[in-house]
Amino acid sequence: MTSTSRPQELHSGRFWREVLAEAVATLIFTGVVLGASAAPGPLVPALAGGLAAGTLSCALGAPQANPALTLALLCTHKLGALRGAAVLLAQCAGAVLAATAARLVSAAGTAGQALCWEIFATFQLALTTFASTNHESVPTGLALGCAIIAGALTGPFSGGSMNPARSLGPAIVTGIWDNHWVYWVGPVLGAVLAGLCYEFIFGPGASREKLCA
Amino acid sequence: MTSTSRPQELHSGRFWREVLAEAVATLIFTGVVLGASAAPGPLVPALAGGLAAGTLSCALGAPQANPALTLALLCTHKLGALRGAAVLLAQCAGAVLAATAARLVSAAGTAGQALCWEIFATFQLALTTFASTNHESVPTGLALGCAIIAGALTGPFSGGSMNPARSLGPAIVTGIWDNHWVYWVGPVLGAVLAGLCYEFIFGPGASREKLCA
Amino acid sequence: MTSTSRPQELHSGRFWREVLAEAVATLIFTGVVLGASAAPGPLVPALAGGLAAGTLSCALGAPQANPALTLALLCTHKLGALRGAAVLLAQCAGAVLAATAARLVSAAGTAGQALCWEIFATFQLALTTFASTNHESVPTGLALGCAIIAGALTGPFSGGSMNPARSLGPAIVTGIWDNHWVYWVGPVLGAVLAGLCYEFIFGPGASREKLCA
Amino acid sequence: MTSTSRPQELHSGRFWREVLAEAVATLIFTGVVLGASAAPGPLVPALAGGLAAGTLSCALGAPQANPALTLALLCTHKLGALRGAAVLLAQCAGAVLAATAARLVSAAGTAGQALCWEIFATFQLALTTFASTNHESVPTGLALGCAIIAGALTGPFSGGSMNPARSLGPAIVTGIWDNHWVYWVGPVLGAVLAGLCYEFIFGPGASREKLCA
Repeated sequence: MTSTSRPQELHSGRFWREVLAEAVATLIFTGVVLGASAAPGPLVPALAGGLAAGTLSCALGAPQANPALTLALLCTHKLGALRGAAVLLAQCAGAVLAATAARLVSAAGTAGQALCWEIFATFQLALTTFASTNHESVPTGLALGCAIIAGALTGPFSGGSMNPARSLGPAIVTGIWDNHWVYWVGPVLGAVLAGLCYEFIFGPGASREKLCA
Repeated sequence: MTSTSRPQELHSGRFWREVLAEAVATLIFTGVVLGASAAPGPLVPALAGGLAAGTLSCALGAPQANPALTLALLCTHKLGALRGAAVLLAQCAGAVLAATAARLVSAAGTAGQALCWEIFATFQLALTTFASTNHESVPTGLALGCAIIAGALTGPFSGGSMNPARSLGPAIVTGIWDNHWVYWVGPVLGAVLAGLCYEFIFGPGASREKLCA
Repeated sequence: MTSTSRPQELHSGRFWREVLAEAVATLIFTGVVLGASAAPGPLVPALAGGLAAGTLSCALGAPQANPALTLALLCTHKLGALRGAAVLLAQCAGAVLAATAARLVSAAGTAGQALCWEIFATFQLALTTFASTNHESVPTGLALGCAIIAGALTGPFSGGSMNPARSLGPAIVTGIWDNHWVYWVGPVLGAVLAGLCYEFIFGPGASREKLCA
Repeated sequence: MTSTSRPQELHSGRFWREVLAEAVATLIFTGVVLGASAAPGPLVPALAGGLAAGTLSCALGAPQANPALTLALLCTHKLGALRGAAVLLAQCAGAVLAATAARLVSAAGTAGQALCWEIFATFQLALTTFASTNHESVPTGLALGCAIIAGALTGPFSGGSMNPARSLGPAIVTGIWDNHWVYWVGPVLGAVLAGLCYEFIFGPGASREKLCA
């Protein structure tokens, strides 16, 4: 974080990647909180939102994902005006996108709704997985665990599975195969999307490529 | 922590900053526990208090925020008498201030009450954020997540939002704008206040300045 | 993780140990989620699954335990085709085994059911304990704590005890000794099994032996 | 941990300190689980027990506090027979002591019961605090937070306060002073006891003294 903010920043790949990370982080945070708010009481959305924000902070290079924090960094001259304005717009856009998508999805049928939430929950889990590929330490395991808890609390019906094998086992044993494809297509789509995002946009290799280009 | 306690300590900026940190930490801890006690059962206040205390310990340089711990450190000669007495007074003052504020706020209207709790919850979140600006490691992400969970469990009605974007998204989609200003003014005031506190009082730069002065 | 996948991999002890780790990790994850799903609400299975996955990631060398993540790693060329296929099969086999065992166990009597869940819960706890024997740092303590929470939430009746002493104390005081042998035989069997698995298959010493052979 | 076990171990201060740590850790773990079992559902005792075990592992040098784990270490020759037997006896003694104390306390009046649980909850919190005095890192803060959550979930009526200031604030504001002395005497006794235990038995300085003697 630098306190300078010059127009030439706009030509930097790193600048736009940080702005995009803010939009994606706010989108995921808002989506997780909205998805978890179907449960009664304050505990489930609080846990889901906090754990998602904590792991996103690891996966996406510590975005603020919060206009209040961004404005406080602006006030204390830790963030330039141009970057601050771009970040604020990105955060609001991410949150509005998440709320719009959640509203649209709630009008879909049960299978469509489950599919969308599976894609979303697995996307945030896989982003954390890709970001932690190079570390095998204990905190990484805890970060993955947090992402799984956050994803499993998301979704208005029964929480995210995010794992085709976990759905396959009970399906074989009980013989109940209704909408089973959802738990393969959703998680795989979400994870592949997250892998591509990380490789081409947020990962360290991607950043070096873009900085050289 | 030193076992000596001499009158000249009273002229040290570091001494008073530590005493102030104890008052602020006890104020936040007591406020979070009181705010979370509206939920039924012991789980929500226990989680909120523990997570707030854990993150405050990172943000404010490991205050005890607890007269029992301070007295135990005094008994084992890990803390001088003068410093111990100042710390004990600061802790009691912080807790009384928190309880008084919580009582006064509960007499305000719904919007005023929500505004005050948003300021408070975002203050503790932003303090953690500023303290962890220089680290981008996994534990920092977990500390931020803990501060968000603690804040989201605080407040007697629906928990803290602490995030204007998270409130903006659903407001645009649902068209419900009642008291929406609260979720901008509260978090921004709380975060800016925390930023100023950290920069001028608790941050490492601030400490060096004060030690030199 | 390498992007090459050659037939001679099939002769490597390390290859098969990784495939086995995927099967065991998916078996444990699926078993914990199924065992915790008896509780009402989404919170208990989400916490149990996430905490188990987080600690397994430390104990077994960061397996994916999830076909969606494995397919995403395949798509981004982080995993070879041969290894990816073996891992996918292992994950599905582990999950089907866990679901079958859970179904079979639910037909046993109360004591048999408790015995099986005690073996299972203590197995995953002891695997984490053995993997963390060489570290005495704070994150290790948290990993152990997570494994205990995950195990204690598992099992359809009253959660896992995983600890004969914890069951002995109340039995002596209350004089209720019904099925007390379950809480000695189950945890001891599970822990010894985990110890042997770790020493001969997953531990660093075991890997060196197998690589040399 | 060594695989040898010779009679001369019995003259080593380190040997007996490890055995005592096993007894104390099993006592605290069993006490926390029993104290938290008054809450409905499996979540509260699981969280309290796991978090207490995780932080005890940091504070007391990674005791097993579990006969099943000790027997598994014996079977894999990671622990000698003499040490293993002493540790097993210590664990059972600790658990029986905890269960007996919990039974005796439940016969006391409300104030006496609250006093005993406050002493116990603050003892385990203060032990963690003393053990982490030398570290100011993020994991330490999380360990303290875990100890506070575990303690706050303990005790059959309203959870542990463990903090006189937190009880003083509401008492001044509401004017309700019934049994207020309990929340000063209990936590202070528990914390001082923990401080003395740590300084004279479990701390690194204490260990050096005993090894030299």
